[in-house]
Order: sequence, then C-alpha cells, then structure tokens
Amino acid sequence: VPTVEVILSPAICETFDCDQKNVVVVDIFRATSTIASALMYGAKAVLPVLKASETIEYREKGYLIAGERDGQQIEGFDFGNSPRLIQDQRIKDKTLALTTTNGTKCFSWAEKTNCNNILSGSFLNISATSQFLKNSGKDIIIMCAGWKNRVNAEDTLYAGALCKLLKDDFSLQGDGSLIASDIEVQAQKVGYLSYLKNCNHYQRLKGFGAEKDIDFSLQHDIFNSIILLQESKLILQS
Amino acid sequence: VPTVEVILSPAICETFDCDQKNVVVVDIFRATSTIASALMYGAKAVLPVLKASETIEYREKGYLIAGERDGQQIEGFDFGNSPRLIQDQRIKDKTLALTTTNGTKCFSWAEKTNCNNILSGSFLNISATSQFLKNSGKDIIIMCAGWKNRVNAEDTLYAGALCKLLKDDFSLQGDGSLIASDIEVQAQKVGYLSYLKNCNHYQRLKGFGAEKDIDFSLQHDIFNSIILLQESKLILQS
Repeated sequence: VPTVEVILSPAICETFDCDQKNVVVVDIFRATSTIASALMYGAKAVLPVLKASETIEYREKGYLIAGERDGQQIEGFDFGNSPRLIQDQRIKDKTLALTTTNGTKCFSWAEKTNCNNILSGSFLNISATSQFLKNSGKDIIIMCAGWKNRVNAEDTLYAGALCKLLKDDFSLQGDGSLIASDIEVQAQKVGYLSYLKNCNHYQRLKGFGAEKDIDFSLQHDIFNSIILLQESKLILQS
Repeated sequence: VPTVEVILSPAICETFDCDQKNVVVVDIFRATSTIASALMYGAKAVLPVLKASETIEYREKGYLIAGERDGQQIEGFDFGNSPRLIQDQRIKDKTLALTTTNGTKCFSWAEKTNCNNILSGSFLNISATSQFLKNSGKDIIIMCAGWKNRVNAEDTLYAGALCKLLKDDFSLQGDGSLIASDIEVQAQKVGYLSYLKNCNHYQRLKGFGAEKDIDFSLQHDIFNSIILLQESKLILQS
C-alpha cells in the first residue's frame, strides 16, 4: 500500500525523502489558493519566484507580477496575494510571476528533489487532487508551507482533509499525518471557518481587511482540475 | 495576561523569543520522563550532555553515565534512557550524565537564551509544574523535543495537556498551542495510551521491547516537585 506523509513545516523538510513520490505543496492562506484561483480564472500559468527583485524582471518578459511580504502587496506589483482580487480580466491568458512569504519557497525546494509530480494543493480543487493522487498510486508527501517556518493551523488542516480523502487507498505514516488528521476532526466539529478564527493567520489577514480571502480559500471544489508544476510553471491539467 | 506558546519542533526554535520566559522542555519518550524518574528515585542531579564521547568523560568525575542513540542504550554506559530501569539503587545520591537523541539538545539551546527558568516537563509531575508556572506568572514557552527535528505526537500531547492546566491563567498564543490543545482533546477521548499507539515512537519503542517505558511515562503526578535546570544540572525543587 502506498504511503502518505505530512511535512508540518518547511524547516523540517530535509528529514523527509521525496524520491519518486508525488508532492503536494499547500499554503492555504494564501499562495496556493491564489494560484488555483488565477489558473481557474484563465491565467495561462503561474511561475513561483523566490525573490521580489527577481519577480520584477519578469515584467519585461510580458508577465504580470504578483506578490506579498508579511501578507501585504509589494509596492509596484500588479497584484498582491489575494485569491479574490487575482480574478481580474487582465490575467486572462497571461503568465503570472508570483512571490510570497512562504509558499513559493516550497515549490523551489520540491523541484530540487527527485520527486515524481509536484502539485499545488488547495481546498478549491481538493477532490480533483485526491483523485489524481489515487490514480497515480505513488507515495505522497503533503508539504505545508507554514508561516516563516512555524507550523500553522490552516495548512495542517488541509493536510488532514486530504489525508481523510486518501486514507482508504493509502497508509498514513508518521506523526505529521496523525496530527493533521486530528486537527481536521476538531475543525470539522465546529466548521473550518469557525475553527480557523483562532489561528494566527486569520488574525493577521483580518488586520489587513482580508477576511474575504479566508472565506474564498475555504470553498471546496469550485473547479475540477489539478495544478501541476511543469518546467517551473504551475499549470492546470484536466 | 501572560502567554503560553508551544514550539512543536526544535528545528523552529529560533523563530521564538524566550526572553524572560519560563521554558518547559519536554521529551516524553523518554528523556524528560527518565530525568524525572531518576531524581524522584534519589539521584542528586542529572546533567544533560550533547555528545556520547563527552558523556563518557564524566565517569572520571564520579558520575554515572546514561544515554541512548536511536532509542537504544549506548554500549558501555551504566544506563540507557529507560525511566523504569533508571530506578536502580546505584543512582542514589549520584549525579547522572545523560545524553539522548533529542531531549538533551533542547536544554542546551534553552540555556543559551535569555530565558527565566528552564524546567524539565513530564506527565510524572505535570501538576507541580503547572502550579509553579502559575505562581511565577511569567510568559511560558513549551518546547517539544520531537524526533530528529520532526514534530511528534507525544510531546505535542504533553504540551496540550499543560496548556489545558494553564489556560484559565494564561493566554494561549500561536498555532502551536492551538494544535497541541486539539491533539490533547482527541487523545483524551480514547485515552492517552490508546492514542499514542498510533504514533511513530510507540512503534519504535515497541520494537526494542520498551512498551513498559511508555506505560511508565504516561503516569500522572507520581511526585509533586518541579525539576529545574541550575548551573547546567537538573535538580528537584519542592
């Protein structure tokens, strides 16, 4: 039986072996929700970029540029990291270069491993992602982006929700998947939104007036494709 | 209101500020349970030591030496890291030098910070520890030793149990304390021992025939003193 493991923080990713495994990167608030939203709305591709300075250079290549630091839009960028505001006519058929505090680093790390596919995970297409992983049948690593290397509740919750969808077909391995699954059980009881009102990132986003991004990011299955990293770009695949 | 934060893995401790806070180091399976057991049984003090080679040097100074690597007793050492087997007549009034895979590193790290008191935490004296922390009234950091930098279920569970005892007098801060508290709720439902039967470390210890150490370590409040690090040594304080 293939396995599922959960990396709760990028700080500990070196202790995991991704060899030949499918890796799902998750940064619910908000990078992977924004990526999903942009692609669903018609962007051609999203290029995750580590540095803001490097992101700016992609403008000359005809890309739109998006990004945040500490949750706020970087000055002079076309977009921040809001999954709602990225749904803008300007992005149709364009490639976006996106840099964020936590999420983009995870794609960069996963690319350096000898993994199989790298997927971008969010609640917006969790069932399609789960189905793809089942069809593939390979071992799985769910990699939570966290917040500045700390473990966070929302990415852990997504990991638990994905584990729940996978658990009949895979063996959940390690305390990371145990903890994530438990968080999902607790959050399910009161509802994900109520649950996450106690988390750090909710308070941070509320401080920016970005509560609506939270509601948006917690929608389940608003589209039915997966998102794959191919040649360093994230694209939709039906 | 003073705060409680939980560090789920030593890999992320640098993202936390311990300044003037009381730090509780926890390594339930088994370093901090073994430390508690030894002191309760009459050892004079326990000196946490990082390296096995360094630990051996303390023998010449009249110390007994104890330690494990990957869960197993180091060859030639007086003791391994079993909280049951450490209860031996030989340890009475002796100082033990102890080196373990995860726990001893945390004491070393905490000592380098500008924290207030450093406590060794285990279920064996959780109520005394909680009472001391309440009387002190300072902000608290609960530092989980984990397993080779990975987050583990048993230390997270202890952190949640201690948060539960502190929550009326302190403000629980950060997703670490949220996650730990949720794990405790889940574990409480089925009983701690049943809960931990699914965790990595249970399986590892079972493989060594050390299940009885698990039962031992999950006993609550078998003594009523706290354990403090003073001049690099852990001692009982009533």
